[in-house]
Amino acid sequence: MTNLPLGFRFSAVYAGIRKKPELDLALMVSEPEAQAAAMFTQNQVRAAPVALSEQHLRRSGGKCRAVIVNAGNANCATPTMRKVARATARATAKLLRTPVNRILVASTGVIGEPLDENRIVGALPNLGKHLARAGFEDAARAIMTTDTRPKMAHAEVATSKGIVRLAGMTKGAGMIQPKMATMLAFLFTDAVIEAKTLRAMLRKAVAGSFNRISVDSDTSPNDTVFLLANGTSGISVFGPDRRAFEEALGRVTRELAVAIVRDGEGSRKLLTIDVEGGPTDQAALRLARAIANSPLVKTALAGADPNWGRILSSAGASGVPFDPSKVDVYLNGHMVCRAGIRADFEEAEVGATMEKEESVLRFHIRGRGLGKARFWTCDMTEDYIRINAEYRT
Amino acid sequence: MTNLPLGFRFSAVYAGIRKKPELDLALMVSEPEAQAAAMFTQNQVRAAPVALSEQHLRRSGGKCRAVIVNAGNANCATPTMRKVARATARATAKLLRTPVNRILVASTGVIGEPLDENRIVGALPNLGKHLARAGFEDAARAIMTTDTRPKMAHAEVATSKGIVRLAGMTKGAGMIQPKMATMLAFLFTDAVIEAKTLRAMLRKAVAGSFNRISVDSDTSPNDTVFLLANGTSGISVFGPDRRAFEEALGRVTRELAVAIVRDGEGSRKLLTIDVEGGPTDQAALRLARAIANSPLVKTALAGADPNWGRILSSAGASGVPFDPSKVDVYLNGHMVCRAGIRADFEEAEVGATMEKEESVLRFHIRGRGLGKARFWTCDMTEDYIRINAEYRT
Repeated sequence: MTNLPLGFRFSAVYAGIRKKPELDLALMVSEPEAQAAAMFTQNQVRAAPVALSEQHLRRSGGKCRAVIVNAGNANCATPTMRKVARATARATAKLLRTPVNRILVASTGVIGEPLDENRIVGALPNLGKHLARAGFEDAARAIMTTDTRPKMAHAEVATSKGIVRLAGMTKGAGMIQPKMATMLAFLFTDAVIEAKTLRAMLRKAVAGSFNRISVDSDTSPNDTVFLLANGTSGISVFGPDRRAFEEALGRVTRELAVAIVRDGEGSRKLLTIDVEGGPTDQAALRLARAIANSPLVKTALAGADPNWGRILSSAGASGVPFDPSKVDVYLNGHMVCRAGIRADFEEAEVGATMEKEESVLRFHIRGRGLGKARFWTCDMTEDYIRINAEYRT
Repeated sequence: MTNLPLGFRFSAVYAGIRKKPELDLALMVSEPEAQAAAMFTQNQVRAAPVALSEQHLRRSGGKCRAVIVNAGNANCATPTMRKVARATARATAKLLRTPVNRILVASTGVIGEPLDENRIVGALPNLGKHLARAGFEDAARAIMTTDTRPKMAHAEVATSKGIVRLAGMTKGAGMIQPKMATMLAFLFTDAVIEAKTLRAMLRKAVAGSFNRISVDSDTSPNDTVFLLANGTSGISVFGPDRRAFEEALGRVTRELAVAIVRDGEGSRKLLTIDVEGGPTDQAALRLARAIANSPLVKTALAGADPNWGRILSSAGASGVPFDPSKVDVYLNGHMVCRAGIRADFEEAEVGATMEKEESVLRFHIRGRGLGKARFWTCDMTEDYIRINAEYRT
């Protein structure tokens, strides 16, 4: 992570929120005020930081000075959650001498247990002292719950006027965790982009990345993505430059999203699903999601089993109409289903390719449909069950 | 199963369709021609027997002489599937000297491997020879795939004119099996009921039973329910008698549906989910289904973990709007969530109640909503993963 966006500084500390003495509180500050865009969970149950950040963005007209994030506690479904989120924002605003609505807040961790605001407020001076551009990776570590590694991605975009930089971090996958309320992603750029444009860019990028992954089909009350643009590079992105920037944003968000799947709970394998030939892109996406969420497809991947019948059947249950006799299925380049029936292939040979860390499933519907979609998921192993069933013991 | 419906006879043999030498072909014959109703899979992928039985019911105007069912092979997604289903029906019709459209066909088992019609045709004379009222349980055994036990239920309905009898059998649960295409149920009564009425009764009964269970949220291309009424009792059911009969049908189908969940793959525990206070019954059903299908709720049950946060969050992801701060959740009678936050309860005490074979989850939304729904699911254990991932080894 050598060439981080200009004008951003990061720091992280252990504030005593999680039991293990590991970084659990991160501060991410933009030196000039940044334009900000956000996307939040669609769950009816929403954590207090989600509601507060949404309110702040509305009141500030899409401006942001800093993001404060804790791991170890979701600050969700407790009597004090609103009070704690507000106190966190207020103390951060005071530290940075900025209006409180310039502060965005995010939390991840256990649902339903009160979060002690004093841990956060007490740690803030220390966080402020250690802000540094190089604190990026520490911040990425501080937002982890049972992720096994920090997840970061970055890009440089060569515009007609020079380089702009983009960097992002993320954690967790769906609601993969024992009581963990989960997916967070933070994206930073030094390009000059206005909040409204930034929102459109973020919506598009998330639709092609974080909304196309599944670990266990559960969603959480805390899912949050922020994108901050502080303009420190002095470079505005218009026309072809905007397209180049959007492409980089797409690449960075996809990289982060796929990193979430790779680190999915108990998962050992990544599966990329390409659906081609649906009536529309939306229909193709529904087919891809149905295949990705099928426990039988996910367990077949764990067992390196080229079980095309389960793939066909899970697609058939998606609610999208298609003619099964027009479907070809390929696993790692081998045709396993031709026109809806078994293709001529060697089980052992195709099975062996599924032992690798990455597999590709191509679901092709013959005919004139131009809809297509890509989706990522992981295998489902006994470890997933063990982790989620036995966390009390 | 002492008091089976009059006028039905059953037999079963091992026809060599499955590898293990266990009953795999069942014939179910009504002596007078019966009125028949059916419901089939909603999956886009449909096995040949499903399409053929649907066609026969249309052509016969809802009349049926016999049902022929094999296990071990789904007769689905193979080039010969239509030919095999037709040959099966034709040979059965010939044996019983009845028009071919009076024969209903069902299959369950491996998808995508050709079924040898000669095994069925060759076994039919033997099946015909052994038809007997007492063959009911053998037939229930013959339709099993990896079910660990046959599943039967029966009822006697005391009408104003005397007793009518109802009996049913079922197998499998969702698409729980390695390559198994799965849920079948066959229901028989000696009441006099016309096909049109029978269809309405069946639709209602299935909506309250087989459509309210989930083992792994997968559906299969073979799901089939038949209800045959042969009128042998001479008793028509009208008015209060009809209500009594429908109640018995509801009870028998629920008993069979719950038996499927109890015998779900790798499952050790049954969970009954009651949602109360939704805006409509349909909304309550969607909430109940979302809770039932959450891998995190199912693994929490396996681990005897009163994890109300997961329950609240899975309901929140259902797409049904509700105010989380109006939700109370009870586990086995203990309030674990009050008005959307943690209730005052002992984790260990409630956890201990979840070690039992049956648990009840009550999800109550305060307010004026009168919608309610009951749903059944089971825990998700490491055995589920093991069975589905490792069947090749």
